[in-house]
Amino acid sequence: MNAEIIGVGTELLLGQIADTNAQHISTALAEIGVDVHRHTAVGDNPKRMTLVIKEALARCDAVIITGGLGPTPDDITREGVAAALGLELRRDPELVALIRAIFKIRNRAMPESNLRQADLPAGARAIAPEGTAPGFTLDGPTGVIFALPGVPWEMKAMLEKAVLPELTVRSGAAAIVSRQILVLGLGESLTHEKIADLVDAQTNPTIAYLAGKGQVRVRVTAKAGSQANAAALIDPVEEAIRARLGPAAVPGDHDSLTTALPAMLLARAATVAAAESLTGGLIGVELTRGPGASEFFRGSLVCYSDEAKRDVAGVPQSVLDRSGAVSEQTAAALAEGAASRLGADLGVAATGVAGPGEQGGQPVGTVFVGACWGGRTVARRAFTYGDRDNIRALAVTAALDLGRRMIEGTA
Amino acid sequence: MNAEIIGVGTELLLGQIADTNAQHISTALAEIGVDVHRHTAVGDNPKRMTLVIKEALARCDAVIITGGLGPTPDDITREGVAAALGLELRRDPELVALIRAIFKIRNRAMPESNLRQADLPAGARAIAPEGTAPGFTLDGPTGVIFALPGVPWEMKAMLEKAVLPELTVRSGAAAIVSRQILVLGLGESLTHEKIADLVDAQTNPTIAYLAGKGQVRVRVTAKAGSQANAAALIDPVEEAIRARLGPAAVPGDHDSLTTALPAMLLARAATVAAAESLTGGLIGVELTRGPGASEFFRGSLVCYSDEAKRDVAGVPQSVLDRSGAVSEQTAAALAEGAASRLGADLGVAATGVAGPGEQGGQPVGTVFVGACWGGRTVARRAFTYGDRDNIRALAVTAALDLGRRMIEGTA
Repeated sequence: MNAEIIGVGTELLLGQIADTNAQHISTALAEIGVDVHRHTAVGDNPKRMTLVIKEALARCDAVIITGGLGPTPDDITREGVAAALGLELRRDPELVALIRAIFKIRNRAMPESNLRQADLPAGARAIAPEGTAPGFTLDGPTGVIFALPGVPWEMKAMLEKAVLPELTVRSGAAAIVSRQILVLGLGESLTHEKIADLVDAQTNPTIAYLAGKGQVRVRVTAKAGSQANAAALIDPVEEAIRARLGPAAVPGDHDSLTTALPAMLLARAATVAAAESLTGGLIGVELTRGPGASEFFRGSLVCYSDEAKRDVAGVPQSVLDRSGAVSEQTAAALAEGAASRLGADLGVAATGVAGPGEQGGQPVGTVFVGACWGGRTVARRAFTYGDRDNIRALAVTAALDLGRRMIEGTA
Repeated sequence: MNAEIIGVGTELLLGQIADTNAQHISTALAEIGVDVHRHTAVGDNPKRMTLVIKEALARCDAVIITGGLGPTPDDITREGVAAALGLELRRDPELVALIRAIFKIRNRAMPESNLRQADLPAGARAIAPEGTAPGFTLDGPTGVIFALPGVPWEMKAMLEKAVLPELTVRSGAAAIVSRQILVLGLGESLTHEKIADLVDAQTNPTIAYLAGKGQVRVRVTAKAGSQANAAALIDPVEEAIRARLGPAAVPGDHDSLTTALPAMLLARAATVAAAESLTGGLIGVELTRGPGASEFFRGSLVCYSDEAKRDVAGVPQSVLDRSGAVSEQTAAALAEGAASRLGADLGVAATGVAGPGEQGGQPVGTVFVGACWGGRTVARRAFTYGDRDNIRALAVTAALDLGRRMIEGTA
């Protein structure tokens, strides 16, 4: 079974919002084994919207539309679906009563225009509103259509209650299981080089890459009759990939170091602290993204000036004088200062030049990271490229990965 | 002139990432007066991708494609564009040399497969790579095509350098000028309440709202024959809006406090330091997003534990004992500690409960912010709601806004 997702709303085409609804629905459909073939976003324009719906219906088994179900004149998804299928709109008396009741309960006067929300293409069944906008579902000649509101929480609730159960039944879904292997320090092309023959040899499970911020995720996805059977298909492939990648592959199933490093710390009842300059606080932010960070995170010393590196993080003035603020030596001293001043087991640090201008004779992108763990300190140059944001993100990844390798004993 | 945007990548259809590229490009095109009629996302499937590109070309003047330009076998946008236009792929010798040079400079071995990135549809002109992936542009029989990498920072850089200038020329755009009024502490509906009649009375300039992270941007956009004439249309409307909003409106044309507060500091040759707990380093990150941060930013003390608040930021133990770590008093002491320990003119601080669990009897979302400036310290409770991410973002905004008001003398 395959599906397409259509987002309706001129605000999408003006870039005022991103189509996160399409992402959410796609994730949910992948989990029940429905293949999504296309996302489309179209504005509040009757002709173009009708065309988009008509085309999607001709191509796939299920079309899920979000947005355009409100009461204002620019909400025209009801009309668009009706026109695409050559149907009339009919006012649903039960919906009229429901909409009037909702306003009565809220003690608000109902503008008559709100009754437009009770109009449905002939043959459609209403999906009860979560806010005030009803959704609907309709069996077309070639596939099923679901129309949901664009407000994310209303859309999500209807998806759970009305769309996923229906599609699960219709698709007779087999189980789909995905597992990720997080790879650091190799980059996408080197990762691919090492496992290309495994990728080429596979059709089930399939293997895909996702790269960003210096991290590559190798995603292994299997389809089978049950979750257990799908997992059993993944196991040997995962093992083979990990054998090729060695210590570049992070143990466990992780999206990023943001979850991987905390898991390693928690497993050892260990704590971490950071000292950072060019990253401005990003190392601390990454380590505190998830809940429960106070269990393992002590703090971060963001030291933008030499004085702060000396007075706050305890970098010896002699190191700053001899090697400079952007150096292996300073990165090492920052990591040690963070661990000792904040009382943590692991200290991680980054210092460097984020740009756009050079700094103290060092070119943009020069970054050193450091880490100390169990009486050992290691510092090294990090590989970075791109603009200021990217250099900062790569510096964070390099610092956290050095911390990870220190704990694993592979640094 | 109208355009469509195509995002390529199975990861989009699996919901692993949202198509934020389409949003970014749409915003940029709206600013130069190009109408976007459709966004499409399609997977790494040759047949379906080719069809999507062919259809888009038939409908509009410009097609911008992102993604699928990497070196791995699933990167097939080059092939997709060539097939859609019935062209052959040719290996561009200059790009081959460039790709080899990039790897050489980085001192990395180049997998031969990377040379696929030098293949271009016949007649296409290369857009120089920002990372390692070149983009390209091609004049089709009905319109122009741009193919850009999917990695956001690479895409954004190429859009600025190669796409927008070209489309601006081709569209013969009349001048469009936008100016933003940043509003803090009111929220979108209160902001609207205060200026609704001004909004309703306008057609040129138009007035739109954009809200997020506790900040509302009122965007005033005018079209005219020249930049100067467009600006002249905006002036009186901006003045009227500012008169209504008072100190909630930040002076100048700013996207967010991330640029507004640094501008105020630089204008006074003043510096800032932060001390933060629940925000984990986000205040430092916000203040260092732009270039030149070392001119005004000293650092941030990220103190997740009580010990760190005391030892690193100098919060008196008596304050922690009497009022607790999440309190007005601690927020005030953190701001003062940041300013004194890091030697800054302005100190800002945030402490609170980001959730998901309560902390020390304080419910999720309890946040206090503090600031000190010119011998005066102020602390107050910040209004927050939503999930962990949102609470942290609102805490940052509240802390920076308190700093802004301290400098302006309106706190």
